[in-house]
Amino acid sequence: MEKFLNLKDPQEVYRDIIQIIEPAVNEEKVPLENSIGRILAEDIFAPEDYPDFPRSTVDGFAVKAKDVFGASYNDPIYLIKKGAINIGEDVSLVLNEGETYQIVTGAMLARGADAVVMREYARDSSENVEIIRGVANGENVLKEGDDIKKGSLILRKGSKILGGTSGLLSALGIYELKVYSPLKVHIYSSGDEVVLPSEVKTRGKVRDVNTYNLFSLLKTENVKYQYKGRLKDDLDVFIKAFESSLEEADLVVVSGGSSKSAKDYTETAINNLGRPGVIVHGLLISPGKPSIVGKVGNKFIFGLPGHPTSCFIVSFLFLLPMIRRLSGLRDFLPKSFAIRLQESVYAKASKETYVLGKLLGENIVSPLPTDSPLIFPLSQSDGLIRIPLGTEGKEKGDFAEFLPWEF
Amino acid sequence: MEKFLNLKDPQEVYRDIIQIIEPAVNEEKVPLENSIGRILAEDIFAPEDYPDFPRSTVDGFAVKAKDVFGASYNDPIYLIKKGAINIGEDVSLVLNEGETYQIVTGAMLARGADAVVMREYARDSSENVEIIRGVANGENVLKEGDDIKKGSLILRKGSKILGGTSGLLSALGIYELKVYSPLKVHIYSSGDEVVLPSEVKTRGKVRDVNTYNLFSLLKTENVKYQYKGRLKDDLDVFIKAFESSLEEADLVVVSGGSSKSAKDYTETAINNLGRPGVIVHGLLISPGKPSIVGKVGNKFIFGLPGHPTSCFIVSFLFLLPMIRRLSGLRDFLPKSFAIRLQESVYAKASKETYVLGKLLGENIVSPLPTDSPLIFPLSQSDGLIRIPLGTEGKEKGDFAEFLPWEF
Repeated sequence: MEKFLNLKDPQEVYRDIIQIIEPAVNEEKVPLENSIGRILAEDIFAPEDYPDFPRSTVDGFAVKAKDVFGASYNDPIYLIKKGAINIGEDVSLVLNEGETYQIVTGAMLARGADAVVMREYARDSSENVEIIRGVANGENVLKEGDDIKKGSLILRKGSKILGGTSGLLSALGIYELKVYSPLKVHIYSSGDEVVLPSEVKTRGKVRDVNTYNLFSLLKTENVKYQYKGRLKDDLDVFIKAFESSLEEADLVVVSGGSSKSAKDYTETAINNLGRPGVIVHGLLISPGKPSIVGKVGNKFIFGLPGHPTSCFIVSFLFLLPMIRRLSGLRDFLPKSFAIRLQESVYAKASKETYVLGKLLGENIVSPLPTDSPLIFPLSQSDGLIRIPLGTEGKEKGDFAEFLPWEF
Repeated sequence: MEKFLNLKDPQEVYRDIIQIIEPAVNEEKVPLENSIGRILAEDIFAPEDYPDFPRSTVDGFAVKAKDVFGASYNDPIYLIKKGAINIGEDVSLVLNEGETYQIVTGAMLARGADAVVMREYARDSSENVEIIRGVANGENVLKEGDDIKKGSLILRKGSKILGGTSGLLSALGIYELKVYSPLKVHIYSSGDEVVLPSEVKTRGKVRDVNTYNLFSLLKTENVKYQYKGRLKDDLDVFIKAFESSLEEADLVVVSGGSSKSAKDYTETAINNLGRPGVIVHGLLISPGKPSIVGKVGNKFIFGLPGHPTSCFIVSFLFLLPMIRRLSGLRDFLPKSFAIRLQESVYAKASKETYVLGKLLGENIVSPLPTDSPLIFPLSQSDGLIRIPLGTEGKEKGDFAEFLPWEF
């Protein structure tokens, strides 16, 4: 029965399979306001300097630095006040030696000015301004291109539009972007014991858990997912379903039932449909061993374990990274940070072990029961504690790597 | 000019203002598949036990534990094989003394069986099964309600449907939920120097950065946001805009221009519109001081700083938590973890200081220029390094608290 002769190490899966995946999706143009959360399909270069004019970074007086050299409280320097520069004004004024303009934060410097004296170091009268502290050339000024130089690469192809990147693009007047279209994913469940919402659940059967958890995981990715139903324990049913999905979708996902046959049907169906066929027959992780990755032509079929916690963990660790690469994203690995364990965690040294964890604040995580048929601990967890290959566990109080579900 | 006599400590804002906000939104029923990312408007109690029948957690043989007590390789115990139980079957079979049924993972136990011997500890022949290792009562069995007891509270009102909660609900047959409707937020920008995409940018003006960054931040919340335009530096314009938005929206947000007047107009307009008026005149943080929180009746108006980095930080630290509470979410604080600094960070001890940080992997964060008019560092950052009040900074290599933009 056991055919897992060649379990794949997770790092090998990342390096040899996922890392080298090319985007499987088209490109489309979208307006900036609709680009949030989307993946860039082009490198973006700054079309202009930012700022594109010399700006004061304080309220004060625009000067030539050499005019106020050595100015002090006891030895002030007097400048002729030529006027005031307001914010948003296009200034063609020229500042000559011995002169100053009053200026506000963000306003444009007069030509010839090279620094700004802060308001608190100047005493303003109607015609003259008394400067009581000198400034260096360039002080309190943001010059053209100081933040971003025209022509510089500001966002790379394959990065996600989020956080401050949206405002950055707006600042440079980029209101239309080329992004990747959403990946089309078909989801199947399997197992004759699995009952769908539309069906009556008789005693001894269980309702579909994995499909809804997959919805949760895929919701935040750039994906158009569609649930295509439960596959009966019948090889022909598997083959026909995969065959039709490979035509319509970019990726096919099937969660296994508890029975071994679901896994066997998935493997056999994939190998029946074309080359290279099954490329991962099992993963060297706990839980999550009975996972299958197949490829027919250049399309992937991902067979997930039936056990809900294993299914979720494998989806999070491998299916999502695969989806990200297929969707055009550069960074595909789950993010992590170090955190202290509230309790000791035991692991098999022969496998990379993942344990559900609940964050308790104060940088402590509590391990939850993981390698079990329970579903409640998964629903209470915030992410995974990773125990590396070759380690038998971690002590209470030790630091461990934690991968939050959402980051 | 300076009116910030009463800067609010961030912890005070959380405790005295945000923590006590009640949901401002209606409730609606949605099907489970549309509930992902939404906020529960009801406590959910388990309508049944999970599992609702005794299940084997392994492939093997269902037995009475006392029948195989003391069984060993050298002293095996023989049981009469009565048949096999398949997955999904509703079993009415009774197991009598000295008998066994073959059983698969997830299948229902025969009545009278109380444990399962794993396949590897049994030798199967056509009529008898030789057991070579005893089991304890309950071993390899998940009994009714072992995971979830009927009637127990499984999800609290105010929690978000994500991760494994979706599958949990499906497992219990809960396919419709009461969730909160999305919060309606009106967004304004201000500042006569700010140019919108529809306008021609002349030299000396700057394009709207804050509105697009707000779109990015609000995208992941349960919010229907609408940009309502730029407010001219004119008190009447501010009053009229807020007045009409208070009728339609649940929350009004305005980002300031660089000019001081935007802040003054926002304050005066809020106080003009009703009680209690402005309740926060400035925040004891750096950057982000010039922030305003006002309340008219029971609706909030949030005035954000004009400086893009300050605007983003204040939105992340205070506006999002406020939105979460108004939307019905229980947990509203940004999440954080401890991380080592690649470079030293300096701070004013008199303020809580936030510094942009870029994650470098290996649990190290690199501080980026923050208290400046630059916009590029914000676009490159992954979150905020927090330097607490009373601290003058942190050394290179020290642990600091890090708040990722996305978690």
